[in-house]
Formats: sequence, structure tokens, C-alpha cells
Amino acid sequence: MTSSAKPVRVGVVGLGTVGSGVVRLLVESADHITRQAGRPILVERAVCRDPARDRGLRLPADRVSTDIGTVSRDSSISVAALLVGGLEPARSMMVELLENGKDVVTANKALLAEHGPELFELARRKGRSIAFEAAVAGGIPIVAAIGECLAANRIESIRGILNGTSNFILSKMEEDGAGYAEVLQLAQAKGYAEADPAMDVDGTDATQKLAILAHLAFGVWVPWGEIPRTGIEGVDSDLMSHAAELGYRIRLVAVASRSDGKLAMRVAPTLVKIGTPLAETRGAFNAVSIVGDAVGRMFFHGLGAGQMPTASAVVADIIDTVVGRAAITFRTTGVLDADSPAARISGIDMTEKHFLRVCVNDRPGVLSRITGILGEHGISIASVIQHDPSGAAGGVVPLVIMTHACGTTAIQKAVAHIDASDVVSGRSVCLSVLDD
Amino acid sequence: MTSSAKPVRVGVVGLGTVGSGVVRLLVESADHITRQAGRPILVERAVCRDPARDRGLRLPADRVSTDIGTVSRDSSISVAALLVGGLEPARSMMVELLENGKDVVTANKALLAEHGPELFELARRKGRSIAFEAAVAGGIPIVAAIGECLAANRIESIRGILNGTSNFILSKMEEDGAGYAEVLQLAQAKGYAEADPAMDVDGTDATQKLAILAHLAFGVWVPWGEIPRTGIEGVDSDLMSHAAELGYRIRLVAVASRSDGKLAMRVAPTLVKIGTPLAETRGAFNAVSIVGDAVGRMFFHGLGAGQMPTASAVVADIIDTVVGRAAITFRTTGVLDADSPAARISGIDMTEKHFLRVCVNDRPGVLSRITGILGEHGISIASVIQHDPSGAAGGVVPLVIMTHACGTTAIQKAVAHIDASDVVSGRSVCLSVLDD
Repeated sequence: MTSSAKPVRVGVVGLGTVGSGVVRLLVESADHITRQAGRPILVERAVCRDPARDRGLRLPADRVSTDIGTVSRDSSISVAALLVGGLEPARSMMVELLENGKDVVTANKALLAEHGPELFELARRKGRSIAFEAAVAGGIPIVAAIGECLAANRIESIRGILNGTSNFILSKMEEDGAGYAEVLQLAQAKGYAEADPAMDVDGTDATQKLAILAHLAFGVWVPWGEIPRTGIEGVDSDLMSHAAELGYRIRLVAVASRSDGKLAMRVAPTLVKIGTPLAETRGAFNAVSIVGDAVGRMFFHGLGAGQMPTASAVVADIIDTVVGRAAITFRTTGVLDADSPAARISGIDMTEKHFLRVCVNDRPGVLSRITGILGEHGISIASVIQHDPSGAAGGVVPLVIMTHACGTTAIQKAVAHIDASDVVSGRSVCLSVLDD
Repeated sequence: MTSSAKPVRVGVVGLGTVGSGVVRLLVESADHITRQAGRPILVERAVCRDPARDRGLRLPADRVSTDIGTVSRDSSISVAALLVGGLEPARSMMVELLENGKDVVTANKALLAEHGPELFELARRKGRSIAFEAAVAGGIPIVAAIGECLAANRIESIRGILNGTSNFILSKMEEDGAGYAEVLQLAQAKGYAEADPAMDVDGTDATQKLAILAHLAFGVWVPWGEIPRTGIEGVDSDLMSHAAELGYRIRLVAVASRSDGKLAMRVAPTLVKIGTPLAETRGAFNAVSIVGDAVGRMFFHGLGAGQMPTASAVVADIIDTVVGRAAITFRTTGVLDADSPAARISGIDMTEKHFLRVCVNDRPGVLSRITGILGEHGISIASVIQHDPSGAAGGVVPLVIMTHACGTTAIQKAVAHIDASDVVSGRSVCLSVLDD
């Protein structure tokens, strides 16, 4: 516990938003971090595409290069923070760093969701560790919570708001009664949403994070592309009003839950009851609710993205690596083995309440027809709201139905049946409902 | 990662609610825990006051004794879970276990708050570790969050609902409009409150937990008895109605916050704004909100007490000890050094909004007198509600005042001044107000 202990030298690969934040934190909080790690942690070298650009960082020019080799081949560097997004060249960089004996800390969830098993296997073979707290839910220590703190529990379910951009858009639409396109523009102007926000709003980002959490929690590897996924593009302000009328808000919720030994997963816009923690998660915040068999329900809330919250998680992982905790966690957390069973999740039902909006032609007998179809599929109805047809465009009115709990397959079949009938106009919307 | 690795043998000292839960979890989830720890964890021996009592545990009778020596002198045992409450014999037992080379896991917050520095010092001298996640907020992994996950942050503030019993009482009073005594009886009947709930309702328990968290977060040791502390006994349902009228609930909140390099701490009933996470924490749940300079505000919510949530934290600590993480954390977390500076917190102001209830004699000029006194002390008023005097007992009416932010010392002086004046009847109530 003396700061005169031998310093650890770190290479920072990628000086975008997160990489710059990591350098700032390591430099500006150096004294504090030295106390936490028991020795100084120095940024020895950085790698980025444009070394000449002024990022306001206290890094000597001769320490910044475009060449990953300056980090991987520098034997004084023991830990590398890989803070480059996307799959390539991030994957090749990770391989090169591991092959050259570096422990790696990363925030790249796409890389882990796509190539996790092979990269973990390589690290294991090389006797190195990969730490990735920052890859999921930014500053929220959810990876440590599942992998270490809840280790005594069998996890029963995970529900998370894992994408800050889409949560910002949904909660802003709700607060301002504004449309999706309008709020998306605002989010881009404010820097919450990327110029190309496709991976955020179509649920890809949340799905990749869910795949990583499910791996930790359930010990299975689910290729993220197999997880049913619906984005928020189809959420309109009418839908929000209908949900609010019933006491709910709409959030993009990632769910993994186990019942009867089977794992069900999905990412989709979901009705969450007003007053519950997920419904009260606004703006760019993330939230995760976990149920463990011993601990019961735990809830975590915090900034899921942004420069310093993510840097906070990266630097915590660097400290963990320096003191030796990361190596132990990586070695003992058997769920990251390459031979983790791949889970089959397709066709696995969750039994939940559902919210349906059907746009019907306003004429007699329609309600009985719709409810009849639901009944044929064994779905019972909790409530129906038929809105006043006055002023409805072309005699089309929305019918809002809340079902009792039913299986995913049954409700999907029923909705397809309804949409194929001659009483509806346009496609129905069907969302899962969470009451707790 | 094979379950054929050499088992670790554990001694469980204390078979009360938590101790029995720990044995149950280690036995019933043995396969899962073996995977997490990389080797089996066996309950080798248990110690309790009454070995003959049937607790429904799968422990052979010859493994249960009243003698701590059966654990401390058994060289096959490397880890002991000390799950006895109170100061003695818990302190002597901890010393004996450490002296005999056992790593210790404990849930005893009173012991750590009272004797932490000397016990940590002894463990360090003996090359052993003490892990104590279960001592604060039960299943919520707040010790790991502060000590490890937020290690890159300088913590700015901690606010917590750390005592489940008093939170159950306050939220039940609020929901049912019931009186304190009535709800306390109910809590005792339901097993939420002890037969002697003094340490819960007078704030002692929360204060001891706050002292431990502040130690981790701020690196200073504050003797818990020096922390200003007010219990919930004075909270009545009228006070709750007045708070609700202004948009607040009342919670027993433990606060430690740093400003200008000074640490301020207290435990007291506090107005928390409806809709904020602390206000939405109900029943026996605990919650902690932490602000770090990098991560921003984090919020954790979960069951803060009870058999299995607490056992979950104890067993996670046992796993951490077995795999070697606990030893690293104990060694590197410098804040637990016996030579941590003792903080002086008395007289350190927090600047906050305050809620005042003054019972005044209903006659002209009273309001101007009260507001005049506040003005003399430099306190400005945000709002005043004077309730309808009709039906007021003996012409005494409650005056409810919300101040703008002001220092603790100023408001305390002003209230003393008001209470010494001839326009009030009985003592005023003054509570801090948290808006976020």
C-alpha cells in the first residue's frame, strides 16, 4: 500500500469518447487510483487513427501512434484497454494484444457478443484475462454483480434497460408528446444518438448486451442474432397514450428468464407499470433488475453510457487487473468457458400479459370477432378500451386490449389471425406487459 | 474448474436466522457453488448455543458444538463465517478465529462499527482477510460496489435507507395512515421487527452501517457514536400528511457527503421527493444512492435483511475468500488501514432545504414572528402552509414551512429560538429535505 511500489504501465487503444475519458481519469485522478491499486498506473502509450488531433489530453506526442504494435510489442506494458468499437479491426487488435501477453480490458460489447467464446479461449490459453464491466450498462457494475456478488444465487431472471439512446427517445416522446422522428433528431443534435443510430434503435445494442449478461448469469452462450428483437421505430405517441391510460409506460426492455429449466430471451418495446423501477428509468439512464433464488429481486440504476461513467468502469477493471482480482475472476468464472453449452432459445415461450392495439373498421360485430379469435387461441381478456370513433380517419378506430397472462406463441398466432381478418385495417401492435 | 479440486472446509459460527440460511445455501446449492468457486465448499463444523435444537439443517449432530474452539482449532478449516450478533462474545470469537489463522466472513455490523480498526489490523498482521458484504444492506452488493467497482471514483455522497425495520414501519404508516405504535406491533408480529427494536428505530443500526460505508468510500474512520442520529419514534401520521401535501415521503435516511474537503454525516427521518428512488423504497427493502465524480449517480435497491438475502451475501464472500479475491481486496483496500485518519464530523454543516412543523397558538402576528426569527438567522422561506384552525385543539395549529437551502447550524439555532418563544406550543419538528 505504498505509492512507491513499481508502477503498472497501460496501453490505451482507441482515443474516442471513452478512450479519452480513460486517459483523463488515469491522469487526473492518479493519486486516488494509486491508493486504490496499491501502485501507480501510468498511461505508457496510446493508439488512435489521428494522433495529431488535439483531445486536450496530457499525453506526450511521441507516446501516441496509429500502430497497435507500439502497445502489443512494448514489453513494459502489461495491461491494454481496447476501446475501439465494432468488429474489425477491434477483433484483430484484441488477438494481437492477447498473443503478446497483455491482459485486456474492453468496453466493446459487439466484439464480445460476436466473438466472445473464441477470444475468452485465446486469453485462457495465453494465461491472460479479459475484463469487460464497461461493455454492459456503462457505470452500473452489473458484470461484477452477476459474476461475483450474486455468485451464491441461481439467477432466475434479468430485465434491463440497456440502451441509453432508445431510452432517451422513448422517455422524451412520452414527456413531450412528441413523435419518434422529431425526438431522434433532438437526440442526435444533443449527442445522445449517433449520426447512424440504427444499432441503438433497432435493439441490436441491447441484444448484444443481453447475450453477454445471459452468459454470465445462466452459463450458456446464446448467439445474439438468435434472440428475438424488436426495435423502437414502431412506437408512436398514440401507443404511449394508450399505455398511459392503462397505467403503463413503454420502455425497450431486454429480458432473459428461466422457467422449467428453459431460458427465454427477447428485446422489445414493453409496457412497464408506472411506479415500478423500470418505468421510472428516464433519459439516458440504464437499469437492470435481477432475481436470484436467494437474494430475491435486486435493482441497479445508473448512467449506462457517456464518457466518464464508461471510463469509470474501464478504470475499475484496470485496477482489478492490476491487483489480480480480474485474473481470478476470469479463471474461476467457468461460465465463460468456450465449451459453455449453446442455448436453444427459439420457440421458448414466456408467459406474460400482453397489450394489443388493433385498428378496426368501425362497424357492428367487430369487437366480438376480435375477442372471438383471441378466445380460439385460448387467450382471455382482462380489459378492452374502444375509443370514441368520432373524428376517426376513414372509420378506423383503435381497439386497445389487455390480455391475461398467455404464452408468446399463442398470442403471436392470434395476432396473425386477427391481422389476416377483414375487420382490421393495418397491422396490429402486440407488446409484452410487466407489472413488477 | 473441476469439482474434483480439493474442497474448502468452512466453519459456521452462529446458527441463528442468517447462520442457518448460510448452511442451507451451502448445502442445497452445493453444485452451483462448486462451479462458482472452482471447488466444493463444505460445512465442516458449526457452533451455536443450543446444538440440540432442530433447525432442519442437514448437519450431522457430531459436527455441531457450543465450543468456538472446535472451529478455531480445526486445522482443516480455512474459512469461518462469524454470524453471531452484538459485541461479545462476537469480538472474542473473531479474535480467536483470526489468531488461529482463519479467514473470516461476517455479517456483524455492530462489531465492525465498534471494533473495526483493531480487528482489521489483527487480520492484516496474521495475513488473513475479513469480508463483510453482508454487514451492510444485506443482499445489496454495496461494499463491493464502493470498494471495487467504483474504485476509479472519488465518492461525493452516499445516501441510504439501511434499516429494513424502520423503513417497513414508515412505509406502512404512510400506506395505512396508521400510528407508529400500532405499526410497530404489526412489524413485531410479522417478524420484521425484533422483540426489542430499539437499535432499529432509534437509528443505531443504520448509523453503524453508515460508518462502515463511509470508511470504504471516504477512507476515514468515524466512530459511529459521533454521527448525529435521530430515530423514527417522533414521526407521526400528521407529519406524513404534511409531507405528502408538499410532494414528499418520510424515510430514515443515512447520509455521508463531502463538500470543500469536509465530510458531513447524519442519520435522521428525512423528506424525500415522491418519484425519486429513495421515496419509492418501501417495506423491508434497503436502497443506496451514491454519487461518484466519474460515474455520476448510481442507485441500488434490494432486500436489506432477511435470511436468504443476507446468506446470499455471506456465501458470495465465502466464495470470494476461497478463490482469493477477498485476500486481494483486503490487502489493497487501503481505506481499511488502522491508521486511517479519524474524521471530525461534528459541526460540519450540510446545506439543504428544511421542512419545519411549528405548532403555534392561533392568534394574530404569529406567522410574522416565526418568519421573522427565520429571517434573523438568514433562512429564507420557500413556502408556508397554515392549516385551518377550525377544530384545532386548544387553539393550537400546525404551521408547515419549507425553507430554501440553509446550513444545519443556522436552522438548528433558528428552531431553538422559535421553540423558546411564547407563540409556540410544544417542540417544533425540523427535517432535512432531499429533492433528487
